[in-house]
Amino acid sequence: MTDNDWDDDANPWTITGMTQPFANDWFRIDAHDVIHPNGQPGTYGVIRIRRLAVGVLPIEPDGRVHLVGQWRFPLGRYSWEMPEGGAEPGEPALACAKRELAEETGFTAGKLEPILEMDMSNSLTDEMAVIFLATDLRPGAARPEPTEVLKRRSAPFADVLERVADGRLRDSMTVAAVLRAHHMAITGRIAPGLARAMLGR
Amino acid sequence: MTDNDWDDDANPWTITGMTQPFANDWFRIDAHDVIHPNGQPGTYGVIRIRRLAVGVLPIEPDGRVHLVGQWRFPLGRYSWEMPEGGAEPGEPALACAKRELAEETGFTAGKLEPILEMDMSNSLTDEMAVIFLATDLRPGAARPEPTEVLKRRSAPFADVLERVADGRLRDSMTVAAVLRAHHMAITGRIAPGLARAMLGR
Repeated sequence: MTDNDWDDDANPWTITGMTQPFANDWFRIDAHDVIHPNGQPGTYGVIRIRRLAVGVLPIEPDGRVHLVGQWRFPLGRYSWEMPEGGAEPGEPALACAKRELAEETGFTAGKLEPILEMDMSNSLTDEMAVIFLATDLRPGAARPEPTEVLKRRSAPFADVLERVADGRLRDSMTVAAVLRAHHMAITGRIAPGLARAMLGR
Repeated sequence: MTDNDWDDDANPWTITGMTQPFANDWFRIDAHDVIHPNGQPGTYGVIRIRRLAVGVLPIEPDGRVHLVGQWRFPLGRYSWEMPEGGAEPGEPALACAKRELAEETGFTAGKLEPILEMDMSNSLTDEMAVIFLATDLRPGAARPEPTEVLKRRSAPFADVLERVADGRLRDSMTVAAVLRAHHMAITGRIAPGLARAMLGR
């Protein structure tokens, strides 16, 4: 263990074998036999996610944020979030962001700007996410996928930010997007008029 | 689809069967047979994570943040992050935060404050995270788990924040924690002296 450098170290793991005990259209399990960094044999099951996660935070000139609500089956709970989806193989993140925004809200965005990239749960999965800020919005008809039952609402940015801060909005991509948009508004990385509207100044 | 209420809807899914095709010490797969909200039959594989994810952002009075670096096997990449770990069954999040902070950095914190809760990847997993801000730090000897090879470093909060903003720090819990700490410093939710040190004002 050394202190105070940003240097990357080399891979300390050795892979001695692998099986794939489960796969579906969304992910597969790579069950590795490994030699741990400390030299001991073991196993490491990695959940490989087939799609890039893409999220879009749509904000109006007056600071209102558009959100969608849906029942999240894995949680057994309802969740309000920004529009999100998965990029199909070969689909660029930007194209996916446009598609999900249109499908879930009907909006097209005059400006779609990448504002954050994340590794979602890096001890267990290889899932990555790209988040966009959508502005200059033009309304249209939403057309959610047949398996999606969505509600929509908008709320002032300040209200959405408070719901993130107190845990009422809990989706990690939405949490990160809203906090990043706040950071951008505070640090002059969002147009002054919109920043003022978001911050209520 | 309705507009403009925060109300939750009832569960629109029906579960007609389930198998558990894979399990290890970290997660299991619940492969459900379902009736989709639109009435069509299908399947929904849920990755059930056995541990609550816990992260700790340790900040010194002068605004320096302590980070740990490690090779993340699922990504095949090195990653700098705040101290993180999983709460064992029955272990409260706060106790886990204390333990991970001590194991990975040696520090004990005079103040450990929960600042964020998130659902990590809610279309595929039930993983949840709780994030703490650690201040009033007292140094000690780090004692990482035998399977962990960690480097440590500290950096000014402003540097860490820029690395989050530009995607060099990508771990989702760290990203959210750093942006939430910025939000707290800006909005008077961190002691004024520390907030000034973090923001360089």
